[in-house]
Amino acid sequence: MAVYTHLGAEELAALIARYDVGALVSAKGIAEGISNSNWLIETTGTDGAGGRFILTMYERRIELSDLPYFLGLLDHLSAKGCPVPRTIHDREGSAFRMEHGKAVALIEFLPGVSPTRPTADQARSVGEVLGRLHLAGADFPLSRANTMGFADNLAVLEKCGEAGLRSIDPNLPAILGPAREAAALDVSALPSAQIHADLFPDNTLMLGDRVTGLIDFYFACTGPMALDLAVTHAAWCFGPDGQYRSDLGTALIEGYESARALTPQEHEALPAIAQGACLRFVASRAEDWLDTPDDALVTRKDPLEFVARWDFYRKSGARVFA
Amino acid sequence: MAVYTHLGAEELAALIARYDVGALVSAKGIAEGISNSNWLIETTGTDGAGGRFILTMYERRIELSDLPYFLGLLDHLSAKGCPVPRTIHDREGSAFRMEHGKAVALIEFLPGVSPTRPTADQARSVGEVLGRLHLAGADFPLSRANTMGFADNLAVLEKCGEAGLRSIDPNLPAILGPAREAAALDVSALPSAQIHADLFPDNTLMLGDRVTGLIDFYFACTGPMALDLAVTHAAWCFGPDGQYRSDLGTALIEGYESARALTPQEHEALPAIAQGACLRFVASRAEDWLDTPDDALVTRKDPLEFVARWDFYRKSGARVFA
Repeated sequence: MAVYTHLGAEELAALIARYDVGALVSAKGIAEGISNSNWLIETTGTDGAGGRFILTMYERRIELSDLPYFLGLLDHLSAKGCPVPRTIHDREGSAFRMEHGKAVALIEFLPGVSPTRPTADQARSVGEVLGRLHLAGADFPLSRANTMGFADNLAVLEKCGEAGLRSIDPNLPAILGPAREAAALDVSALPSAQIHADLFPDNTLMLGDRVTGLIDFYFACTGPMALDLAVTHAAWCFGPDGQYRSDLGTALIEGYESARALTPQEHEALPAIAQGACLRFVASRAEDWLDTPDDALVTRKDPLEFVARWDFYRKSGARVFA
Repeated sequence: MAVYTHLGAEELAALIARYDVGALVSAKGIAEGISNSNWLIETTGTDGAGGRFILTMYERRIELSDLPYFLGLLDHLSAKGCPVPRTIHDREGSAFRMEHGKAVALIEFLPGVSPTRPTADQARSVGEVLGRLHLAGADFPLSRANTMGFADNLAVLEKCGEAGLRSIDPNLPAILGPAREAAALDVSALPSAQIHADLFPDNTLMLGDRVTGLIDFYFACTGPMALDLAVTHAAWCFGPDGQYRSDLGTALIEGYESARALTPQEHEALPAIAQGACLRFVASRAEDWLDTPDDALVTRKDPLEFVARWDFYRKSGARVFA
């Protein structure tokens, strides 16, 4: 979380003038996003009420060729009534512009805060919004491959290597076997849509029990809807002590099915998919762990946290997703 | 610039509820402040219009015993019509509270952006506001010693040591002589007031040519008003190439004197005081340079930039401040 690029007030004012949003009133670099620089922008607005926006500069990990998918999906979902921020197009109609050789986009500001200790009512709301989002994306014309699929996770873990994984924890290399099994899973027959694929509480804005915004769509892709539900389940339904919270899990699935009923095939596949979803976070965290110096200021996320969740789904997934 | 402490949404909501400002609507950690964590907070407000605030958590470098001075000064100056953010007091009337063993304060949000390439009109406005601020602080009942005085600067440079200074630049140790001279300066006869003491463009919010906010008062102290003007002059009146910008310098002083006329003694003392002011930034930057690993993510500010400005005031100060 950082602001990687300095944009001066004069540059920001000139940039904002490219949009029909009024004049720049305030710009604060915000400490969000791992792949980009973000500013909370205030303008005079066009109707005298003032406007607020998030200005995002894409720094790394984001392929320029993916931006039409990411930004177009936000506009599509927003137009269908999903609580996602729409993209503000510039006066020429572009969803993003180039500044200093980097892409920038002006995005709607949404109210709300991210829960750190979600309640069952909040999990139910998120489930319902996720179901609605899957239905709303069905007729989106673009598609994007999942770059964090089960085979990709295996490749990341193999790149870490047995020795690398062992340096994090002596038992971590044992995860390579399950990762190979997950890579062999065929999910192509499951119903597919545009999925968020990273719906942690951090990426959810809420006011009370109401979802006011799903944000950070930079892992969004075209993939199995059950995978999105599984990622969200793994991200939301464990307490700070790592214990499964069945009240949250039940509420999340009930909420989801209130918007979109899971098929029998999805119910059946979910235990294995949830295990695969956990391995994705084991893989990305292990990779980040080995890439981050011990004395760096950045807090490393522990891959073992998701080994424990993988183990939970292995043992109890059939019951949880029955 | 960072957010050092994580405060969850639930903690933030509970904290905001201690103030009569409405309910929490949004909280974004902002990348400002080197000594504290800051969040841009939005609330429902008390009159239906919504409210915006900066929540500051004091992390380091700030003495708790100094907070009544810093926060009280903001309230005093704001009440006198100076463009500084007032402190929001909690329901019990306190200007700051303790959370996680750290002091937090809720501070008024002010619009505006910080100029990176100031114009003469902007320099004139800042000068005028600085003069008004000096007059407005005259009857503030508290006082605070300047912890960055000329003798302190010498002590910092001596702690860096000749070898340390030489490791930054072979010629840097030569600054120790002038620092000793500056430390011997007696400024006690000059008119004194509450001064900002760190009024860089970064600490100034503007809309066009109008100053909408002076912020970051955490070096404020009771000291010579001429020192504050000298710091501001050294901070504002040099171009990106390091050249003195006489248009900015003239405008700044004219603006200042439109609010408060300098005394003949101040005019006479300003060349030496401006040199001393530059040495303060040489000292603090040299100290930070030696404290920061070469490969750290933080950008180190070059102490030599202010050696050049010191040299400028040594040669041309008499003319500039005539």
